[in-house]
Amino acid sequence: MTEAPQRIADIEALLASMPGPSETARDAARTREATLTKPPGALGRLEEIAEWAAAWQHRHPPRIDNPQVVVFAGNHGVAAKGVSAYPAAVTAQMVANFEAGGAAVNQLSKAADAGFRVVPLDLDIPTNDFTEGPALDEDTFMAAFIAGWNVLEDDCDLLAVGEMGIANTTSAAAVCLALYGGAPEDWTGPGTGLTGDALSMKARVVADAVALHTDEADGPLDILRRLGGRELAAMAGAVLSARFKNCPVLLDGYVSGAAAAVLEQAQPGALDHTMTAHMSAEPGHRGLLEALGKAPLLDLNMRLGEASGAALAINIVHAAVACHTGMASFADAGVSDKPA
Amino acid sequence: MTEAPQRIADIEALLASMPGPSETARDAARTREATLTKPPGALGRLEEIAEWAAAWQHRHPPRIDNPQVVVFAGNHGVAAKGVSAYPAAVTAQMVANFEAGGAAVNQLSKAADAGFRVVPLDLDIPTNDFTEGPALDEDTFMAAFIAGWNVLEDDCDLLAVGEMGIANTTSAAAVCLALYGGAPEDWTGPGTGLTGDALSMKARVVADAVALHTDEADGPLDILRRLGGRELAAMAGAVLSARFKNCPVLLDGYVSGAAAAVLEQAQPGALDHTMTAHMSAEPGHRGLLEALGKAPLLDLNMRLGEASGAALAINIVHAAVACHTGMASFADAGVSDKPA
Repeated sequence: MTEAPQRIADIEALLASMPGPSETARDAARTREATLTKPPGALGRLEEIAEWAAAWQHRHPPRIDNPQVVVFAGNHGVAAKGVSAYPAAVTAQMVANFEAGGAAVNQLSKAADAGFRVVPLDLDIPTNDFTEGPALDEDTFMAAFIAGWNVLEDDCDLLAVGEMGIANTTSAAAVCLALYGGAPEDWTGPGTGLTGDALSMKARVVADAVALHTDEADGPLDILRRLGGRELAAMAGAVLSARFKNCPVLLDGYVSGAAAAVLEQAQPGALDHTMTAHMSAEPGHRGLLEALGKAPLLDLNMRLGEASGAALAINIVHAAVACHTGMASFADAGVSDKPA
Repeated sequence: MTEAPQRIADIEALLASMPGPSETARDAARTREATLTKPPGALGRLEEIAEWAAAWQHRHPPRIDNPQVVVFAGNHGVAAKGVSAYPAAVTAQMVANFEAGGAAVNQLSKAADAGFRVVPLDLDIPTNDFTEGPALDEDTFMAAFIAGWNVLEDDCDLLAVGEMGIANTTSAAAVCLALYGGAPEDWTGPGTGLTGDALSMKARVVADAVALHTDEADGPLDILRRLGGRELAAMAGAVLSARFKNCPVLLDGYVSGAAAAVLEQAQPGALDHTMTAHMSAEPGHRGLLEALGKAPLLDLNMRLGEASGAALAINIVHAAVACHTGMASFADAGVSDKPA
């Protein structure tokens, strides 16, 4: 059992010592795929998913018995700048809705036979407005990161991770601009529904924040501390802990992708145990996935956050593993596998 | 209860008198979507699916209690021309595999909580080689069409339809070329794995077949009789019968799409009760979906046929309907739906 990191330097040390995939399990999955009653490769990405699940669960056959959907929620000081179409009070209201089972992700988790948990993170204490200073000090950042680090249940074999937090696409945009450069408009989108002048103002907020912090930021994790938020820090913690617990991860949309990208920027390969569940309609997500080299599993014009795309994609992973483990081989089924 | 058609002219009459969607049910779905705890439109195509299911089930709320996966299987005389990487005997071998529960679609149907049925159609009597004459005479064509027409169980509320038939991507390519024109190479692909000279030869077979039948063909359904096969005729019959039984349909890949396209070509709007489950990796499918104006739900590089993509997409429909029916409204959940 790997100890939770206490300081940002500990996270960096963990990133430098992460376990890789099991090539033995991956090879076993590949070998089995080739025997199954279908033309080679005909199940496309379902075959890729089965191999990925085996490699990162470090076992063959892979199993998805206990998938877990987790939503982290946080509030953002920058919301006071009017960067969201909804008031900050909606974060806590939606947490109550998650707890009561009324949100989209509750239905999607049930439909995917997955456990669901929401983790509110000091909702009554928004982060500092990052146009004025760092969003979080290191202690507060680490407390949120550790909340994510500790969230995985012992038997979790697939994590679907997402977030809720009014104004957090502003945070995601600032993190992406700081990590990858480009224009603020490349990374800034409507979020819950901003348009026109409000959207232009949001892009200016993103640009101002990045200008304020760029020179002083000490690496990708410090960028996340300065421009992120508690739910982003927690998602990064959950994603990294899953790596140490042989648990593959489905990333949700733009905000979870931005939080995870910090890990990849700090240590290339840090997200190899993750797949991106879907392409969000939030426009910055496309550029982020290109930067990460991640092809999404789904593209259904969704832009809700709250792990909705990740929960939906659990069905695809279930199906991939069911084919891999349940199909007959050519030999067992008496089907010709020789070209005519 | 609409009577099964006995002649091609009867099918054409049915196409001219198809029921439309229930605008009442669609409006009720739209009205409910607007009250649910999410920004408007944030569930993207899941909202579209819920409205489509309501409109074509003619009820609100829509329900997916009895989804049915059906695979029709047939053999093709043109297989003797060497247009497949596998021998024709594989069709019957795979039917036995479906019946024993060992194929991909068996696992995918189970994972989607859907019923599964395979319908072999005179596998010991291949169609005529359509480079020499019509694949089927009208009686044989109608027998297969009616097998499809009769396949829906009374309580089926979502049909996922697909096929198995060695050489049937050759048939699909010929049907598409005859319906839409273009070059034979636009519509001809590797199928189960053809490459190089064999693929060029397949394109010539497609071109020859279409050249032979174009002048004599009497409309889209006659094209299907001449260039199709029993499983294509049956899929067309199942798709049309579903329209009369208020049952929305998920089309699978290239071959099911080509069979269904005949209905749309004969009567625009005939496929409005269908969605395309996925974009097949078989290259002709992209052009076919463009011609049909259908955006696929999934794009996972699959090219197996046997309703595999359609069965997988049932999960997406389940999830869409679960969100639509299970989510709390802003009022019920006490969440602010007013912009800040």
